[in-house]
Amino acid sequence: MKTLIVFAHPDERSFNGSLLKETVSQLESDGHEVKVTDLYKQHWKSQIDEDDFPVTHEKGSRLVVAVESQKAYSSHHLTLDVVEEQEKMKWAELVIFQFPLWWFSMPAIMKGWVERVFSAGLGYALPDRYGAGGFEGKKAMLIVTAGGGESNYSARGINGPIDDVLHLINHNMLFYSGMTVLPSFVTYKTDYATEEVFQNYAAKLRNTLKNIETIEPIKYRKQSGGDYVIPGGILKEGLERPGETGFDMHIQKD
Amino acid sequence: MKTLIVFAHPDERSFNGSLLKETVSQLESDGHEVKVTDLYKQHWKSQIDEDDFPVTHEKGSRLVVAVESQKAYSSHHLTLDVVEEQEKMKWAELVIFQFPLWWFSMPAIMKGWVERVFSAGLGYALPDRYGAGGFEGKKAMLIVTAGGGESNYSARGINGPIDDVLHLINHNMLFYSGMTVLPSFVTYKTDYATEEVFQNYAAKLRNTLKNIETIEPIKYRKQSGGDYVIPGGILKEGLERPGETGFDMHIQKD
Repeated sequence: MKTLIVFAHPDERSFNGSLLKETVSQLESDGHEVKVTDLYKQHWKSQIDEDDFPVTHEKGSRLVVAVESQKAYSSHHLTLDVVEEQEKMKWAELVIFQFPLWWFSMPAIMKGWVERVFSAGLGYALPDRYGAGGFEGKKAMLIVTAGGGESNYSARGINGPIDDVLHLINHNMLFYSGMTVLPSFVTYKTDYATEEVFQNYAAKLRNTLKNIETIEPIKYRKQSGGDYVIPGGILKEGLERPGETGFDMHIQKD
Repeated sequence: MKTLIVFAHPDERSFNGSLLKETVSQLESDGHEVKVTDLYKQHWKSQIDEDDFPVTHEKGSRLVVAVESQKAYSSHHLTLDVVEEQEKMKWAELVIFQFPLWWFSMPAIMKGWVERVFSAGLGYALPDRYGAGGFEGKKAMLIVTAGGGESNYSARGINGPIDDVLHLINHNMLFYSGMTVLPSFVTYKTDYATEEVFQNYAAKLRNTLKNIETIEPIKYRKQSGGDYVIPGGILKEGLERPGETGFDMHIQKD
């Protein structure tokens, strides 16, 4: 598969950066074509602002981001750095987001990549969303390194279950924009990992990647699949498990 | 109360920017002292990187962000822009984060503010966290404008319940760093709001702010309050409502 890895860590010698090398070498040795967007190395501009719309937005006039984003995207007037990333996204069949979990989310520099690259008309093209949209047909996966221990992210852990912590990325960004989302690969206690711990995680990661084409995606419910009352986006009664609340309701049950 | 408003919107004429003016004028007319950090206007540097540690980190050497952050904070060698924001945080009794909900979280520029200003030793000072830490004794509140409709954020809404969507900010950032968190003020369908809709929200917001000193905080469970098994951070059995899962478990029940 044509694979784009969006990578956000300021030091390639980190645990996370070392895992990136494993990811690239495993994918390439399995015959996949790989491109890497290294956000820190590229000095990626993190915030979306009026400089993103140099031709279509009159400097100093009202800036409604979604409107300007749509205008600049559809008229091919986005900035070159954004256009290059969008070309990579269009090329990719699999998109891997690899990052350290900072404050329980992606680093600001990667959040800014999503804000700038997932333009209106491409990353969101309402009313298409949640299983439909500009990135339909692509697969996505997170590779995440967490500083904390695994128990903190377990079902009763104080940080919240890891699947819930990553839900706003997996479901509300990646599935939202049409992608099929594979289960995330997460490592814990990363800052203090020994070489042995790293090698164990690396082996597990290589094994996951070997099977990347057949891994079952997370079974999120498509907005247009009949499970929701439209308009309103309300899940119909009786589809969830008894007592189930919150994010879990939006995953189909077998 | 001494109030710091951290504001992230690229246009002060937006719905969000107009709400900011309401917030400031109401707080000041009630006798509160107000400072505003306007991230876009300040050209805030969004990403944390080695330039954050100009004295204590040798350029090009290994960069472990938490370690460098602790080192630079404790030796008073952070950059001036960060030091100024930390001084405002130390001064404040109430911190309001006001932003548009982009991709179901705060804008990248504000995420970067948290990454850079909540230094190790201040914003997180392990093992103190969740109800203890550098910002103990301060109150925090979100003022959020959402583009989508309210039903999408209801208990069965496809975006997830708004309290869950904001949980990673309220609980895992603000409560984590020691602050007491007030319920968020959220407006919906903001991009297409009429003047009448704005005025209704503005009146509701002013009324909330008038009562700011007596609003009941969200009853998050303190990590050191006896509800968790330490180490491990696991919620003890039987404290949650029957069938309750996920983020909700970490809120005390009456």
